[in-house]
Amino acid sequence: MAAAIALSMRGRGRTAPNPNVGCVIVRDGKIVSRGWTRPGGRPHAEADALDGADAAGADVYVTLEPCAHESARGPACADLLAAARPARVIVAAPDPDPRTDGKGVARLRAAGIEVVEGVMADEARRAMAGFFTRLEKGRPHVTLKLATSLDGQVALPDGSSQWITGPEARAHGHVERALADMIVVGRATVEADHPTLDVRLSGLGNRSPVRAVLTHDWSNFSKLDLRAEQPDWRHLPSPEAIRDLEGIDYLLVEGGAGAAAAFAGADLVDRLILYRAPILIGRGLSALGDIGLGNLENAHGRWRLADSRMLGKDRFEVYERAS
Amino acid sequence: MAAAIALSMRGRGRTAPNPNVGCVIVRDGKIVSRGWTRPGGRPHAEADALDGADAAGADVYVTLEPCAHESARGPACADLLAAARPARVIVAAPDPDPRTDGKGVARLRAAGIEVVEGVMADEARRAMAGFFTRLEKGRPHVTLKLATSLDGQVALPDGSSQWITGPEARAHGHVERALADMIVVGRATVEADHPTLDVRLSGLGNRSPVRAVLTHDWSNFSKLDLRAEQPDWRHLPSPEAIRDLEGIDYLLVEGGAGAAAAFAGADLVDRLILYRAPILIGRGLSALGDIGLGNLENAHGRWRLADSRMLGKDRFEVYERAS
Repeated sequence: MAAAIALSMRGRGRTAPNPNVGCVIVRDGKIVSRGWTRPGGRPHAEADALDGADAAGADVYVTLEPCAHESARGPACADLLAAARPARVIVAAPDPDPRTDGKGVARLRAAGIEVVEGVMADEARRAMAGFFTRLEKGRPHVTLKLATSLDGQVALPDGSSQWITGPEARAHGHVERALADMIVVGRATVEADHPTLDVRLSGLGNRSPVRAVLTHDWSNFSKLDLRAEQPDWRHLPSPEAIRDLEGIDYLLVEGGAGAAAAFAGADLVDRLILYRAPILIGRGLSALGDIGLGNLENAHGRWRLADSRMLGKDRFEVYERAS
Repeated sequence: MAAAIALSMRGRGRTAPNPNVGCVIVRDGKIVSRGWTRPGGRPHAEADALDGADAAGADVYVTLEPCAHESARGPACADLLAAARPARVIVAAPDPDPRTDGKGVARLRAAGIEVVEGVMADEARRAMAGFFTRLEKGRPHVTLKLATSLDGQVALPDGSSQWITGPEARAHGHVERALADMIVVGRATVEADHPTLDVRLSGLGNRSPVRAVLTHDWSNFSKLDLRAEQPDWRHLPSPEAIRDLEGIDYLLVEGGAGAAAAFAGADLVDRLILYRAPILIGRGLSALGDIGLGNLENAHGRWRLADSRMLGKDRFEVYERAS
């Protein structure tokens, strides 16, 4: 299942509104076929894995319950699997989409195929967080990225921030971009840095996500300048406007302090990624602006450490929404 | 040797100007006696361990080269050890004090006792950092403590900071106080918080260190107020004034942002301890004021991660001066 989850990440950021599923077919302890949801959402992972493979009598590992609904773009995966006659189907997470929601598993069992549920369900949900957030909250999954010094500064007072973190952390930041459907920055960041927000990693250049600017603080800013400079960028009038986005399941907020605080203050951050360099800056620019925190008690209990490791000399930490 | 180093920590913060040494005597794989430098610096760890113990033919582990100089307060430890006729003396770190500086080891070898040097020398030096810093730099060893949110804030805009970190981290902060000879805070912290800076841990109440206030920013502040409120506090006119302190080998700077920045800006911080709570604060008070950093390049290469672990929900990190 861990292999299936890793495969599912290949589609992350390019399959919305379909979930980025992974699938592995195993016979006699060997992987005989692999599949993942392809860009645009089709084929589904199961169809991709079954294509050209003989699954009869094999074990099929799939990160999400196989869908039970046909569409113009293909048959239901539960039917495809039933026809392939595997011995067992091992499922990580149930599919809450009302068109499936248990029907996929029921259809497989009705066809006489053994089904095992809940294997590495948490890990699978994390890998497909955008799909689940969309279904459960009606909006994309939001990651907020902060790259700071040990004392929480993101730049010197003059705005210079090249470089706080090292090459390993910056490369990791580009992987995070490649796993997003859309990147958002604030107005001030566009004005100050004129960022391109593309994915500068060998082989992943074609994965640069849709770019957007948070325009909620549009005063003193010329839309014409931006439109001339970044004609293909989208405009978000507020953090809440992400609820209206279509085809965007994974959103990465890259800063600056105003945009980061706008999303955090609106309680719209699901995942916080921190890159911390072993340096002190002192007087500089803080990572976050006003998030409307009235007292310290309200700050607690919101974040749970999900990952922590070194990237070169920098520490990388992931915090997830605790509730 | 690890046991001897742990014992050495019992004297830390109370033996200056003598080093806080630890000593263990081992016969047939069993510890038969232990010793550590007692408060006030006497007896030395070796004399403490040898007192009442038969070391003939045994292995003696000591964290610092035995001293070669007699004093009015006792004989040289090298002579004490030579008379006790152990089979071997295992030494962690050499003693750079010119009165010893290899003479202790030479005297043991001249007496026909085998000496092994350099066992866990780095760990021993770290445990006796105050002694080495005093000899090598002519000033106390300085630890700077910062307790922050994930975004590097130490308080809300109104100054409230109770509580950012949890009970485990706060208890650890009191252990750090007990291991210091002196605690320093800034003027603004005294005015705002009226801190007592005592050690509030069961059994360690008698270990509260000397307290001092950094008065370098004395404008708008009434000395009389402080003298009335904290009559036993010392006054440091500047970070550089720590060079004139006698009997202080371990100094802990607890903040606030001004005092922390004054020590960091003067390059007088040897060890940085960070307590980071899993919360976001946003607009608040940053941990550090102006440290005079001209460009980001100068910030790099100064700190090396020495420890990282969880204390309850908070992360504790130790950085040491890299050069």
